[in-house]
Amino acid sequence: MSEAKRQLHLNAFLFGTGHHEASWRLPDAQPEKNLDFNHLLRIVQTAERGLLDSVFLADGYVGRSNKLEPFTELSALASRTKHIGLIATVGTTYNEPFHVARKFASLDHISKGRAGWNIVTGAGSAAHNFGLEEHPEHSLRYEDADEFVEVTKQLWDSWEDDAVLNDKASGKLYDQDKIHKIDYEGQYYKVQGPLNIARPPQGYPVLVQAGSSESGKEFAAKVAEVIFTAHQSIESAQLFYHDVKSRLAKYGRTHDELKILPGISPILAETEAEAKEIEDQLFEFIDKDEAVRRLSERLGVDLSARSLDAPLTLEGLRSTDEVNGNKSRHQLILDLIRDEQLSLKQLINRLGGARGHFTFTGTPIQLADKIEEWFTHGAADGFNVMPQVYPSGLDIFVNRVVPELQNRGLFRTAYEGNTLRDRLGLKRPENARRWAKALQ
Amino acid sequence: MSEAKRQLHLNAFLFGTGHHEASWRLPDAQPEKNLDFNHLLRIVQTAERGLLDSVFLADGYVGRSNKLEPFTELSALASRTKHIGLIATVGTTYNEPFHVARKFASLDHISKGRAGWNIVTGAGSAAHNFGLEEHPEHSLRYEDADEFVEVTKQLWDSWEDDAVLNDKASGKLYDQDKIHKIDYEGQYYKVQGPLNIARPPQGYPVLVQAGSSESGKEFAAKVAEVIFTAHQSIESAQLFYHDVKSRLAKYGRTHDELKILPGISPILAETEAEAKEIEDQLFEFIDKDEAVRRLSERLGVDLSARSLDAPLTLEGLRSTDEVNGNKSRHQLILDLIRDEQLSLKQLINRLGGARGHFTFTGTPIQLADKIEEWFTHGAADGFNVMPQVYPSGLDIFVNRVVPELQNRGLFRTAYEGNTLRDRLGLKRPENARRWAKALQ
Repeated sequence: MSEAKRQLHLNAFLFGTGHHEASWRLPDAQPEKNLDFNHLLRIVQTAERGLLDSVFLADGYVGRSNKLEPFTELSALASRTKHIGLIATVGTTYNEPFHVARKFASLDHISKGRAGWNIVTGAGSAAHNFGLEEHPEHSLRYEDADEFVEVTKQLWDSWEDDAVLNDKASGKLYDQDKIHKIDYEGQYYKVQGPLNIARPPQGYPVLVQAGSSESGKEFAAKVAEVIFTAHQSIESAQLFYHDVKSRLAKYGRTHDELKILPGISPILAETEAEAKEIEDQLFEFIDKDEAVRRLSERLGVDLSARSLDAPLTLEGLRSTDEVNGNKSRHQLILDLIRDEQLSLKQLINRLGGARGHFTFTGTPIQLADKIEEWFTHGAADGFNVMPQVYPSGLDIFVNRVVPELQNRGLFRTAYEGNTLRDRLGLKRPENARRWAKALQ
Repeated sequence: MSEAKRQLHLNAFLFGTGHHEASWRLPDAQPEKNLDFNHLLRIVQTAERGLLDSVFLADGYVGRSNKLEPFTELSALASRTKHIGLIATVGTTYNEPFHVARKFASLDHISKGRAGWNIVTGAGSAAHNFGLEEHPEHSLRYEDADEFVEVTKQLWDSWEDDAVLNDKASGKLYDQDKIHKIDYEGQYYKVQGPLNIARPPQGYPVLVQAGSSESGKEFAAKVAEVIFTAHQSIESAQLFYHDVKSRLAKYGRTHDELKILPGISPILAETEAEAKEIEDQLFEFIDKDEAVRRLSERLGVDLSARSLDAPLTLEGLRSTDEVNGNKSRHQLILDLIRDEQLSLKQLINRLGGARGHFTFTGTPIQLADKIEEWFTHGAADGFNVMPQVYPSGLDIFVNRVVPELQNRGLFRTAYEGNTLRDRLGLKRPENARRWAKALQ
């Protein structure tokens, strides 16, 4: 091949012992190492050895998940890695733009331009951990997020790129005319600025988004540079891909400025039979009562009396409109029930693997085929790789799937450029404020 | 000497190119590396080589200081060091207890028990960066801080030490009866909990405090385990030491449970003459106009027309009662003017070195003498070492002062224990909530 082929982007979604909810019960699993930094580091070093674009941490401010906090974990990882991008989920509803802008700027400086921000409005109500009575309603949270992101961008832009002088002769550390108050005043935020750290190496960290509701898609088309999304079929992924890409034009953006990465949650082994064996073992370890309880909570109906084996019906289930949370995930479950006539047991199995993401059980070559199919048929710019079992699932992905993708000319054979933006083929944003001296 | 001598504690206060405001203009200074993690790392590795208890970062949410943010910087440092404590300043006024408790828990897990929290109420008003009109008044900030710390402690205690089971056989990750809502409801905060991370290795990070006002001292006696404080003379330090230590009993605490570390800001060289030369060079580099402007702002009076060389008078200066900020630092400046009849130039020089901390220019042996004097005469349990020039000032401290202190039997010759609490001789706090199943 003489001309450069379009290149895949791969992100590893870190998740303790694996994305399968029962992965921690496997004989080799080490759940006691979920807070052990050196254990986490080895996983990320594997991803870097595989030349992946980035690793990613989900997050929330409620529950009993017992994970490290993203800024602290990714900063520690930044100092022990050289190339891989580091994407932190940070919610807008329960945070302050000044703190978030600053921590991302700091992470971007520490990592020399490898930070990414997965913007969520706050999946799951954390209101009661922050003195509030109620989780704000879905569309309000997006309005708020829209302002939040605008404020953080202005804060990153409050230092012009050449504001730092360090001029010993004149005694000027900074060109004070190039550090600006932003005097933002919106409906939700009022922030004077400037930020107390220079503009990040990447201008802004890479902006990532994962909501797939109507407001989520519109928000993504406006601000996101990467989307993580969940689809159970190539058709659904193609519809989404086309839908979101065609919204870009109205915001003056091109197709290339937004990378769409569906989740893929594999169980891999050298043979199909071995892979199937791991899958069966994982299913055995699911706590079915707990799974039914959780699904009941999510769907807003008590499923405990329903048959595990008969096809589920939608009767009595909460519609997506009634949900004030992860609307797209909810709709995906309703679609699964309707389209595939799954039994409760089958649904639990499907969701247990990766909470609604596309699960895959098979060999490295089969997975490479699937990835190539989606990538070359308008369904994906790459994938959010969610091994059902960590670290072994990432090991086999890096050792066997990555070389196969490289052989097919679909994936890089060395890291290009220096920053996460370079890996993703995203340009460094100009300072969006046309600062003039008079504005200071 | 046969019996174990009381041991000094030493903390290195990190500060860019040094605590002297003009240090960045020295020929060897590298202010362009203030955001360069590897440069910062080398400094901290020097401190660790010197067996110092800890390093410490100040912080604020306003201004143009262009520093890394403490949680991100210290987490990155945690993964590249093994023994040294990592103390982050985090303000209570503009933060949420849930976020702060969680990030410190995460840093403590990443560092395996080396985190410390310097609790400030927010020096300098950051109100306008957080949508507020005004910086809350001094005593209100301490009331708020008191609640804030109480909530964070309860959040750290929301997981009992043995709550994590990882029991593959039963399928129980956690003992749900040992993870608790805290249902805190006070005047300023309402937080349900539990925290979403297990209790920190140290129980709580080491709690540090730096305010020396009346409310500050009372707050410190109640909650702090280390105090950073500023004194210009051994007499002032002795008074403070005695004052704060004698407040401990009423909170049921012993003398040993609170370590008092005055700041000492040295310029060191092999001979006095060389040290004096560095001092002179630094003074040359101070921007006198800017210094007068800043001092005017701090003292609430325009000093630009006053003589640089005549003794200053207190006339027209704001009294400490009128200050809503760093009251103790303000009083210290007033005392200096009154007691030592300093000229404006002398005052600028004294403050330029270390913003009111005890400055020292001389040889390593002279500094060791001074340290021993304060330590053995009831003025200090150790020192907050603030080199006026980084990294050279820390290099000479570690290479020349530390061995001298070791020779005198005043300082450790190897790290003892594993955690920052072990280094400081502080016990790991028990879970303060007497959790019972019924309380869950």
